[in-house]
Amino acid sequence: MIIVMNPKCSEREVKAVENELTKQGLGVNLSQGSTFCIIGVVGETRIIDPDKILSFDGVDKILKVEEPFKKANRLFKPEDTIVNVDGTLVGGNHLGIMAGPCSVESEEQIIEIAKSIKESGANFLRGGAFKPRTSPYSFQGLELEGLKLLKVAKKETGLPIVTEIMSTKYIDEFVNNVDVIQVGARNMQNFDLLKELGKTNKPILLKRGLSATIEEWLMSAEYIMAGGNENIILCERGIRTYETYTRNTLDLSAIPVIKKLSHLPVIVDPSHATGYWYLVEPLAKAAIAAGADGLMIEVHNNPQCALSDGQQSLKPALFDKVMKKVKVLAEIEGKTL
Amino acid sequence: MIIVMNPKCSEREVKAVENELTKQGLGVNLSQGSTFCIIGVVGETRIIDPDKILSFDGVDKILKVEEPFKKANRLFKPEDTIVNVDGTLVGGNHLGIMAGPCSVESEEQIIEIAKSIKESGANFLRGGAFKPRTSPYSFQGLELEGLKLLKVAKKETGLPIVTEIMSTKYIDEFVNNVDVIQVGARNMQNFDLLKELGKTNKPILLKRGLSATIEEWLMSAEYIMAGGNENIILCERGIRTYETYTRNTLDLSAIPVIKKLSHLPVIVDPSHATGYWYLVEPLAKAAIAAGADGLMIEVHNNPQCALSDGQQSLKPALFDKVMKKVKVLAEIEGKTL
Amino acid sequence: MIIVMNPKCSEREVKAVENELTKQGLGVNLSQGSTFCIIGVVGETRIIDPDKILSFDGVDKILKVEEPFKKANRLFKPEDTIVNVDGTLVGGNHLGIMAGPCSVESEEQIIEIAKSIKESGANFLRGGAFKPRTSPYSFQGLELEGLKLLKVAKKETGLPIVTEIMSTKYIDEFVNNVDVIQVGARNMQNFDLLKELGKTNKPILLKRGLSATIEEWLMSAEYIMAGGNENIILCERGIRTYETYTRNTLDLSAIPVIKKLSHLPVIVDPSHATGYWYLVEPLAKAAIAAGADGLMIEVHNNPQCALSDGQQSLKPALFDKVMKKVKVLAEIEGKTL
Amino acid sequence: MIIVMNPKCSEREVKAVENELTKQGLGVNLSQGSTFCIIGVVGETRIIDPDKILSFDGVDKILKVEEPFKKANRLFKPEDTIVNVDGTLVGGNHLGIMAGPCSVESEEQIIEIAKSIKESGANFLRGGAFKPRTSPYSFQGLELEGLKLLKVAKKETGLPIVTEIMSTKYIDEFVNNVDVIQVGARNMQNFDLLKELGKTNKPILLKRGLSATIEEWLMSAEYIMAGGNENIILCERGIRTYETYTRNTLDLSAIPVIKKLSHLPVIVDPSHATGYWYLVEPLAKAAIAAGADGLMIEVHNNPQCALSDGQQSLKPALFDKVMKKVKVLAEIEGKTL
Repeated sequence: MIIVMNPKCSEREVKAVENELTKQGLGVNLSQGSTFCIIGVVGETRIIDPDKILSFDGVDKILKVEEPFKKANRLFKPEDTIVNVDGTLVGGNHLGIMAGPCSVESEEQIIEIAKSIKESGANFLRGGAFKPRTSPYSFQGLELEGLKLLKVAKKETGLPIVTEIMSTKYIDEFVNNVDVIQVGARNMQNFDLLKELGKTNKPILLKRGLSATIEEWLMSAEYIMAGGNENIILCERGIRTYETYTRNTLDLSAIPVIKKLSHLPVIVDPSHATGYWYLVEPLAKAAIAAGADGLMIEVHNNPQCALSDGQQSLKPALFDKVMKKVKVLAEIEGKTL
Repeated sequence: MIIVMNPKCSEREVKAVENELTKQGLGVNLSQGSTFCIIGVVGETRIIDPDKILSFDGVDKILKVEEPFKKANRLFKPEDTIVNVDGTLVGGNHLGIMAGPCSVESEEQIIEIAKSIKESGANFLRGGAFKPRTSPYSFQGLELEGLKLLKVAKKETGLPIVTEIMSTKYIDEFVNNVDVIQVGARNMQNFDLLKELGKTNKPILLKRGLSATIEEWLMSAEYIMAGGNENIILCERGIRTYETYTRNTLDLSAIPVIKKLSHLPVIVDPSHATGYWYLVEPLAKAAIAAGADGLMIEVHNNPQCALSDGQQSLKPALFDKVMKKVKVLAEIEGKTL
Repeated sequence: MIIVMNPKCSEREVKAVENELTKQGLGVNLSQGSTFCIIGVVGETRIIDPDKILSFDGVDKILKVEEPFKKANRLFKPEDTIVNVDGTLVGGNHLGIMAGPCSVESEEQIIEIAKSIKESGANFLRGGAFKPRTSPYSFQGLELEGLKLLKVAKKETGLPIVTEIMSTKYIDEFVNNVDVIQVGARNMQNFDLLKELGKTNKPILLKRGLSATIEEWLMSAEYIMAGGNENIILCERGIRTYETYTRNTLDLSAIPVIKKLSHLPVIVDPSHATGYWYLVEPLAKAAIAAGADGLMIEVHNNPQCALSDGQQSLKPALFDKVMKKVKVLAEIEGKTL
Repeated sequence: MIIVMNPKCSEREVKAVENELTKQGLGVNLSQGSTFCIIGVVGETRIIDPDKILSFDGVDKILKVEEPFKKANRLFKPEDTIVNVDGTLVGGNHLGIMAGPCSVESEEQIIEIAKSIKESGANFLRGGAFKPRTSPYSFQGLELEGLKLLKVAKKETGLPIVTEIMSTKYIDEFVNNVDVIQVGARNMQNFDLLKELGKTNKPILLKRGLSATIEEWLMSAEYIMAGGNENIILCERGIRTYETYTRNTLDLSAIPVIKKLSHLPVIVDPSHATGYWYLVEPLAKAAIAAGADGLMIEVHNNPQCALSDGQQSLKPALFDKVMKKVKVLAEIEGKTL
């Protein structure tokens, strides 16, 4: 951490900052440039609250040298994390392909889709039981009934299930019934929820927030890891920009950036990122080519009856076609499914 | 609602959409342009899920005519909502000035600040007990102990208290001890929390999400109102952009836009929006001049000891100076404090 | 085009809008909903200035049905445009791979790089002679001397050359000496320049502006096409967001969106989009997988001596490795180089 | 400037960077932290090209200590710049109020508006002769004929005229006929144009680019100043965000930020920023309260006949009302008109 003092700061002000830092056990390295006095801080700087230092008189700005995340940092754990979901692996050279409907609607629907996506090569079944909807007047999901139907589909197909949690209230139900607990984009900084999930040892799928920086996203992973749960799969799902032809802007550069910064696996959701089914195929392929550890894709046997997100769902036949292409690219990348 | 069909759509596809709409009790108005076939939908269109319609074959896009919010909509309630917090009013020509420290730190601190801001003219005491921090290694607030200290400060000064809730877990404590429950930017779309707050009749301060559109923000208000609680004060606190000289970009045009779209009162938080104390005064004044119904300002008696957000806090003497200027502008705008 | 009238508009106001439209030879289709009166406009609506209509009393908003671009619109020219640069094709199933240094620095440098990239499979040489630099104190390019050196390199290798124009002042020099004239992101809406380029018949490489929507980008292509020059290659080079780990956010969804909206070829520049050489390989591969018609990649024989953008340049050996992988993906996509 | 080396960098790599810096006459200050080796650079660091340093092996990132602009920097010229336009001052405590139509349309129109805005208190007449329009099919302005009409209006009223330049082609006409040359948002980084304007001594109104950072905006001012022309008035006109209820998001925090960073005057254009006439009054007032040095407001005697931007123009009577309120706020701020 580097502290830049105001060009007009007094010696007394510099001294006050120095004292604060040494009081916290940190080393200090003063350097006077032509205009600016600069304080280099040496030691475990993650314990310092930059906001506090900025409130000292004479401090102009703080420049960060180290990343604020530690457990998620590849610097301290160079090898890839491989998340093991009851024997199905995600990370390293193992792809996780999570497919299924936006919302679980009925036993018939979820079983039919589960069988179909399994046949096409998916190794996880995703489906929403609790749905975060922008409007209170939209369908909110089957809730606990939805979890039950997912379990039935799992029993039929053997596919582990991934579904979104929206509140700490249901943590026990999720821990007992779900294989991968998804934290949605809107809850990426629901810190209470992250803390509670940190106390479990369930694999967590952590979606990037609607306008989260990569650093904030990794800090949310750090929240869970700080609690003791290191089974985290990150999921890029597009960020908000001013572009209106797509729902969000899928940020595929996040994949190689995450690979450099962190050891955690990262998958891509082209369905939510783009909002249109015709964009899923090209971006699913692009994600694999960019090095993603997997995909999350919406598949629905009858999009016109879908109670949510119909226009971004693939029909099973199209999903099957996409998977054939994904497999070719996966092989080129040295990944197995 | 207007449905634009694909230029190459078939008559059968148009018919299928028409049938779906009439099945839902809506009127339909077909119009064939030079290239596009357009379906105008007449009736209570808020019940339609646009995602579902978009999944019909041949549908190109949907154009929204009506706003998706209803209870928050000024069209259906033209007069200003005035929120009554135990006799202190916010909205109409009544300004709510909420001041205090980012975090409650000690009894001495909170009482001293409460007395000081009251003398300067604030009519609410704000202070964080539960703190949403980006890093799990930062100070997380005094939690329930913080609520107690706020109550002591209220007893000393009579100022109603505003503090942030972060989880449904503590709703009862908040309902029993707090005068205005704040929903922070990161929880603006924590729909479970919004639903629970809709069941209480406590005044809610609803901050705009980090990258929420005005429509999404009003839809979050609608979530609370749909549950029966219409005591909502909106709070603009800056949106995320690429600009780095300020923490966020304060969107003051949101004030007159909200005034046109909704009857709910809207205040401005220049402290969090900008991140720097020297920007608070000009933007507090600008907010009042733009028609805001109040302000939320961080004040700390000793910013250098602040456990969070020190660099954006005003010292009491500067807050007092800002308030003198705010009062002059308030009078010009016909507002009372 | 759909005109939504204010819920409280008068019959006189509706009539005034109707008159204006019929005066311009357009058909009008009135429809009165529960709250809103809606005017559907039939005919060649691209001639209407929406700003003018919005200034009529009683008009609330305008909803666009048709895209505002015509010559660039795939609706009116369904087959892919293939740009022919003296026999080298871009578009359809022909990939254009443009490589070379950010700045032309010397004859030796540009010839060495040109030979090297040709051997690796590039079919265009790119290099900056006129450089748009944020700081007036940075190297501004060799200017006309740079054009000469590019021509020497073309003579040596036969590679057609692509270089950026920054002013109408040098249009003749560019037309006479350059094979593809590049319009940089900062000049995407330099309308005077676009108009002048529309009068030539040179192939134009039109980069997307730093924060341009896809619609604005296509409208800039339309400016050139309206002048009579339809030889346009679009180039996605990242858009500005709040993310700081990358210089810009590469928007690969723009590729399939453009393919749907327009017949023009579109290539991707992963070097400028990301700003770091280590991100070029994964995103170059992703671009091809997403359906791009080519790539623009910075290659430098000695990045540490590069007078600009050194950190985003590949060394020739790495470029060669990237090209081997690109070729594999191109073949899968049915593209030839 | 601070250079952060890669945690795994070699001594040889550090040495290579050091050599490069000392070769350029700069001082070097090495500091080895727990993980990172840091190189502090002392001296006139503005001459270093950060991109070049980043291309050295082992360099991880560069942290900026000094602002990259010099002539525009308040550090080196603490007192406010007051731009003198033939006796009318802008900056310090002098407000510049620039009003008039988006486009000059006819002699009658521009004279009538000029008289009317003068009576309401404006001290500059603005009007577009060359218009940057997104669509090639929209009205492009009266061009040179428009300049003539502006001069007639100036002769009638004595108001100095402000109008936008779009190309270096007409620089002489602008220098000879115009009092303040406006550089529009889309040309903020048209560096060729900036360089040419730097050679004149005409006052320049430099609008902020659609998605320009404050630093880039000041660097564009620096381009003009580096050429010798220091008569610059900055103009905030909104930045692009994802919000759709307003055309752009007006960034009023830019006003006090600019005041801290630079000595140049800065005015606000609430008409283009918001896109709607009903938002002009509240944001014009807010701008003055935030410390702006003036306003640019669209006024049209007959918005429905306006050939461009009708919906954001005020009618003269409303402009007069706005000006009365602006004057009250200006007086409070100690500004004269």
